[in-house]
Amino acid sequence: MATIRTAGEALTASLCGERFSVSYLVAGSEREALAMATDICFEQTVEFPEDLVPAGRIREDIVGRIERFEPVEPGLFRASISYAVETAQADLVQFLNVVYGNISIKPRIRVERLSLPECLLSNYPGPRYGREGLRALLWQPERPLSCTALKPMGLSPRELAEQAYQFALGGIDIIKDDHGLADQAFCPFEERVERCAEAVARANRETGLQSVYMPNVTGRMDRIQASARRAKALGAGALLLCPALTGIDALRLLAEDDTIGLPIMAHPSFGGTIVTSRENGMNHAVFYGTLMRLAGADATVYPNFGGRFSFTREECVAIARATKEPMGSIKPAFPAPGGGMTSDRVAEMLEAYGRDFILLIGAGLHRGGSDLAMNARRVLELFERT
Amino acid sequence: MATIRTAGEALTASLCGERFSVSYLVAGSEREALAMATDICFEQTVEFPEDLVPAGRIREDIVGRIERFEPVEPGLFRASISYAVETAQADLVQFLNVVYGNISIKPRIRVERLSLPECLLSNYPGPRYGREGLRALLWQPERPLSCTALKPMGLSPRELAEQAYQFALGGIDIIKDDHGLADQAFCPFEERVERCAEAVARANRETGLQSVYMPNVTGRMDRIQASARRAKALGAGALLLCPALTGIDALRLLAEDDTIGLPIMAHPSFGGTIVTSRENGMNHAVFYGTLMRLAGADATVYPNFGGRFSFTREECVAIARATKEPMGSIKPAFPAPGGGMTSDRVAEMLEAYGRDFILLIGAGLHRGGSDLAMNARRVLELFERT
Repeated sequence: MATIRTAGEALTASLCGERFSVSYLVAGSEREALAMATDICFEQTVEFPEDLVPAGRIREDIVGRIERFEPVEPGLFRASISYAVETAQADLVQFLNVVYGNISIKPRIRVERLSLPECLLSNYPGPRYGREGLRALLWQPERPLSCTALKPMGLSPRELAEQAYQFALGGIDIIKDDHGLADQAFCPFEERVERCAEAVARANRETGLQSVYMPNVTGRMDRIQASARRAKALGAGALLLCPALTGIDALRLLAEDDTIGLPIMAHPSFGGTIVTSRENGMNHAVFYGTLMRLAGADATVYPNFGGRFSFTREECVAIARATKEPMGSIKPAFPAPGGGMTSDRVAEMLEAYGRDFILLIGAGLHRGGSDLAMNARRVLELFERT
Repeated sequence: MATIRTAGEALTASLCGERFSVSYLVAGSEREALAMATDICFEQTVEFPEDLVPAGRIREDIVGRIERFEPVEPGLFRASISYAVETAQADLVQFLNVVYGNISIKPRIRVERLSLPECLLSNYPGPRYGREGLRALLWQPERPLSCTALKPMGLSPRELAEQAYQFALGGIDIIKDDHGLADQAFCPFEERVERCAEAVARANRETGLQSVYMPNVTGRMDRIQASARRAKALGAGALLLCPALTGIDALRLLAEDDTIGLPIMAHPSFGGTIVTSRENGMNHAVFYGTLMRLAGADATVYPNFGGRFSFTREECVAIARATKEPMGSIKPAFPAPGGGMTSDRVAEMLEAYGRDFILLIGAGLHRGGSDLAMNARRVLELFERT
């Protein structure tokens, strides 16, 4: 994450003195891959054929620059391309546009890694709480955190609040809305947040714990910020957002808003195609790890290996690694693996992630009887025994 | 696009009486595909295992319902699944969440078609201008419209404004920012919009035409609406937005805002992975056609076949078809194929699209000499000759 020093730096009349770098995996023969890497340099910046680009600072600084090009395996090459920070400065949306805008439409190019200098990182405060802050907020200094979801869609606010109460009584740290709970007529946002926040507060008074209710504020662009503020006023302790649905900048906006000031969990809904093809898009660590953290997620949800989705153990561990690797002054975030998790997976998750993860367990807490608080306690006991 | 009538309708205590339907292509053996279709019904709604879903209206109405399941070709099946409109009502973000939220992370499921009843469509005004409105605005009742982009990134507002003047003088209808022009220090949004809008107005006074300048308002979520209003105040005649970067709801928001009231062109940057794999995501017609139009795009940009991207002729024609097929009271939008187009492609595009398309030609207008107005005229003459 140090400042990128480039070979041609001494030669160029630099615009701002700093460049950030994107490592792309490009599939094809060496000749094809090199042509694709060259194409990326132009497509992501000037969108102009090479021969039409004016000489001088546009050609030397604005056009992307291949810093390294190397084989990875037969038919696969790594191209590290640097861009002037100034092309993407102070704007997450434009940053993503430079990293992977038009080339998202060109097959066989995958973002493998971002290397961001301090002058770019400093535009992003990142997670407000981060790992330490979230542990402090929840009074859980040491064990993995626990999170469950209120479900199924179709229950009334009153029914969901009763669930929330039971889960908080059982000691679950974060009780979130299922991400399908929006502002439906059968479960209006306002009533749900009020009832669920009250239920969790009531349980906390009985247990002496600090569980939080985390409503889903994903929705109309013009209401997200107001929903988040309203949720806070009604007693919510954290927020759930689906950045691939709202645009990732919604996460940045909520994270930076001092009038909200709540921890935020990013949910992966709708963004799957960015990672799933393995040939296009971005790798799992960049999208769920680096980017969500850069944008301000205190916790990032992704489907754990061996659940009902398709990520490998290696991909999941790489996400967790990206949530804590050095990144300027940006705090580490919590990985929150979920997606069909059950209590018999806990030992395996401890082995893969250590103790710094959020166990996301939804339907699994509805198994083993109708006493949800008891079911929750049984899962949490697994953290003590291992 | 008629109201979906479902087999089980008479049996269910309906929540709102209407369901919308999504046709998914699912790859696998018949047994696997049917299991995946069943899984979609639960994953996209209750996110609960089948045996835990309460009987009654949740099981009968909220859970998705397989309306049809049929083979398409060996190893590929079509599952038409209906959802209660109420699960997704009045909120584009939640609608996308139900259509393709969590299953975006599950490989081998592709959205092939949306069938939306009037009670859902009526929540979306769609394009403010549409094809007829845009033709009226530009005083171009009959021929294909023309659009070019100001480039390359790195030029100053003054230099771009000179380009804009030349293109307008040459009769190009829509002169847009390249989508990489944001609010960079070397080309600030405010100054660029002011200069380019003024340049196009000046050319219009000389030509008697109605060319418009279309700035890119893609950027920070909390500034998009203000940027659009400011652009209008400075004389912009249309707006460019990259919905896959900002979240698609930004498009809906700008389209509905009566204080803005400008036509909007949607640009495909960053959204490529939604269509490119062909096995996952959404097909081209749904994403660039149906969805962009539903959200309010007057014109939708996509890479034309035979350019520097990878779409087939069939996929491109299907997009164009989706921009005009019956869709309640939602107006037809303009397809805007681009991406490396040159004048020698015009005949082929007329054949594929008829006369209702926007020819998007960028770098191609910089070939053939430094007189950009003359280059533009030469391309427009092709519309007359064919």
